[in-house]
Amino acid sequence: MHDTSDGIRLQAALIAALCLAGVSFFHTALAQPAAPAQLDAQASDPRVMGWMVGAPPPADKLIAFADGSWFRFPQTRWSFSHIRELMPTSVVSRGNGPSAVLPRSERTDIDAVKFTPIGRADSMTWEQSLAANYTDGIVILHRGRIVYERYFGALTPERQHIAFSGTKSFVATVAAMLVGEGKLDENATVARYLPEFQASGMGDATIRQLLDMTTGADYTEDYADPNSQVWALTRAGGFLARPPGYDGPESFFDYLLTLHKTRPHGEQFAYKTVNTDMLNAVLRRVTGQTLSTLLSERIFSRLGAEQDAYFTVDPTGVEFGGGGLNLTLRDLARFGETMRLDGRFNGQQIVPKAVIEDIRRGGDRASFSRAGYATLPGGSYRSMWWVLHNEHGAYSARGIHGQGLYIDPKAEMVIARFASHHLAANANYDATSLPAYQAVAELLLATPR
Amino acid sequence: MHDTSDGIRLQAALIAALCLAGVSFFHTALAQPAAPAQLDAQASDPRVMGWMVGAPPPADKLIAFADGSWFRFPQTRWSFSHIRELMPTSVVSRGNGPSAVLPRSERTDIDAVKFTPIGRADSMTWEQSLAANYTDGIVILHRGRIVYERYFGALTPERQHIAFSGTKSFVATVAAMLVGEGKLDENATVARYLPEFQASGMGDATIRQLLDMTTGADYTEDYADPNSQVWALTRAGGFLARPPGYDGPESFFDYLLTLHKTRPHGEQFAYKTVNTDMLNAVLRRVTGQTLSTLLSERIFSRLGAEQDAYFTVDPTGVEFGGGGLNLTLRDLARFGETMRLDGRFNGQQIVPKAVIEDIRRGGDRASFSRAGYATLPGGSYRSMWWVLHNEHGAYSARGIHGQGLYIDPKAEMVIARFASHHLAANANYDATSLPAYQAVAELLLATPR
Repeated sequence: MHDTSDGIRLQAALIAALCLAGVSFFHTALAQPAAPAQLDAQASDPRVMGWMVGAPPPADKLIAFADGSWFRFPQTRWSFSHIRELMPTSVVSRGNGPSAVLPRSERTDIDAVKFTPIGRADSMTWEQSLAANYTDGIVILHRGRIVYERYFGALTPERQHIAFSGTKSFVATVAAMLVGEGKLDENATVARYLPEFQASGMGDATIRQLLDMTTGADYTEDYADPNSQVWALTRAGGFLARPPGYDGPESFFDYLLTLHKTRPHGEQFAYKTVNTDMLNAVLRRVTGQTLSTLLSERIFSRLGAEQDAYFTVDPTGVEFGGGGLNLTLRDLARFGETMRLDGRFNGQQIVPKAVIEDIRRGGDRASFSRAGYATLPGGSYRSMWWVLHNEHGAYSARGIHGQGLYIDPKAEMVIARFASHHLAANANYDATSLPAYQAVAELLLATPR
Repeated sequence: MHDTSDGIRLQAALIAALCLAGVSFFHTALAQPAAPAQLDAQASDPRVMGWMVGAPPPADKLIAFADGSWFRFPQTRWSFSHIRELMPTSVVSRGNGPSAVLPRSERTDIDAVKFTPIGRADSMTWEQSLAANYTDGIVILHRGRIVYERYFGALTPERQHIAFSGTKSFVATVAAMLVGEGKLDENATVARYLPEFQASGMGDATIRQLLDMTTGADYTEDYADPNSQVWALTRAGGFLARPPGYDGPESFFDYLLTLHKTRPHGEQFAYKTVNTDMLNAVLRRVTGQTLSTLLSERIFSRLGAEQDAYFTVDPTGVEFGGGGLNLTLRDLARFGETMRLDGRFNGQQIVPKAVIEDIRRGGDRASFSRAGYATLPGGSYRSMWWVLHNEHGAYSARGIHGQGLYIDPKAEMVIARFASHHLAANANYDATSLPAYQAVAELLLATPR
């Protein structure tokens, strides 16, 4: 069944590593370089592959943490929906209230919607895009109703899927709420809250610079370098297995203490996962709460979530704030609907309207432009949300391998997607995603009330 | 804050190891040998100790998996309520239905109930027994109503606590249900279901011998021996950290394959956790389901459970059937009430009456007597339940460090308890538990309808 060679696996792992923080060496190019042939969505379906099936699973069907197989494609098609079975996790409680009903008005005309992928001449249907993007699950809300919902492979409505960097938008939204309440000063430096960072490269970064990813932290993803920081971050956090004899940092916090800077903070947008983990450390110090408790109290217990969510945690029990949130697809959609409705959902104001207005206004577009995200021309980044600055006012939470929450205010549409694309960076499947979202938005916009 | 010496910690760890499977070298004596002084329940309260508090927790407040600190007292007072934050786990879904309401009729007269601990002349109150037993949480149901409910330390109503060997009673009850349905032959051998065990010591054990713990497996807990099987089992299962250079079995299944026997199966009751993990391997082969799914479908999704439960899993994703179930206290009580009501609870027949009748009849009392459980005179063991054969017809699920589910049919009473006693074996706190349960049962029995 394993018709990918070790060489291909290694390359996939390297690409994944490169892109873990959402940064890709492809991101200046529209089309990705010729990659080795990969199994398509149907062939890599985890039910077809038979991962972890058997009593016990035979060696060639096993997906494990220690050998890193969980983070290799096509095993990722199973593991992204089974993270808690692979590593320690902390619950983000949904509380004890009833779940918020998402009424259904299934649309049968969405599958046939046609769009032209970015950089291509031929068109594709929405239904075709799902396989092209290695979609694990996708739901479309229109005016608060589920108009489309599909699950593939290992994902079910009840199962939590990893959001990767989609996590950041949750964390930063809560941080922005605390700023609004005066509990966190966006102009204060990290060292004001965490004096032990005075001597670190992050000490003089402000909270706002963390939120907008303009720090000059010496942190990049270099796929050719086995000592690349992305490996260091994830190994320190226990998210990837440590090699024998590992003597690096034992936690996210300890890793952050080792950071230097390559340039002054505030000069340029540069997407770095460490900014979110730095923010998490500040939030924990300021609130005295774990990130799991904070997100439960502030968001998940108010959303009418269907299931508990969870975070991966490092060996000190601290959450992977930059990418470790796991939640169900519908609960991701509920959060998107909350954002679309100016923060009011499930009978209560969950996120202040001012926080969302600030996100929607976006960040520094000139700085963003220099970062070279070719699939997001004219876009910006604000409080860990990607703002498209298109005619619909769309903005998005995005995570590697295809995780996404896309909010289109004009079309009154929210799309939540989980995926397990073999390539990490969004640039690799934005071409078959963003124009598809726009095409569905236009269909829905034309729907009479 | 750490006023226990390393020596005491080591001894606690060794005692814990010795007793992991519920077997104690104390179990032939009523009173335990003079143990080193331990922090009492108040002093060892995890909130007082401040475990895992801080942003991030400082080194002396840290509880970790890798260094084994999570399994040392008094850290256990925190960790037994936070297992998922320490190792991989698999969800046992409660399903999507409403939780079964447990009506409340709080009794204020229970705390003052007096009883005489086994082997002592002076009496003790129920309230005093809670601290003596290092209780983390306890709930008493009478005629289906909560008459008493208390939480201490790290436990809350929403939080899952490890049941240790209380797990076995869940697993074996489901196995007995499958026997009743003809899907599992209790007279068939392990090798009939798992041919690869033909050459192993467990191959010719029958399912019934597993259920009643009468196999002759070469498996004991020897605290003086660093190569003791209890370490091997838990390390193979990933439940305790493996030492550098570990080259032992990589899973529960692989460990079970290494077992020999010291005597023919069926001769004598001898409590061995490996019997339950062997049973789990058979159940998985027979049903094609994971233990998590099996328990969800058969029990947790029918109970009207308040929260999902979860299992610790080994590096191959297989559940620790002998001791890895974590659940909330009230959900444990709901299962007890199901058993008390001949299997009918939450509007449905969850466990067939015949299965429960068979458990209540008990096992071979003469064989049990020879095993020397001095706090359970006249008792027996049947389908992984402890049957007291007392005047009230009581039977119990029991796990190390004080986990217990006690069902008293005559008094129409169910007691569910989680604890983190510094000593593992039930024999060490039965003296302050079993007579306390009996005294409360007599109080409740005298309550007019």
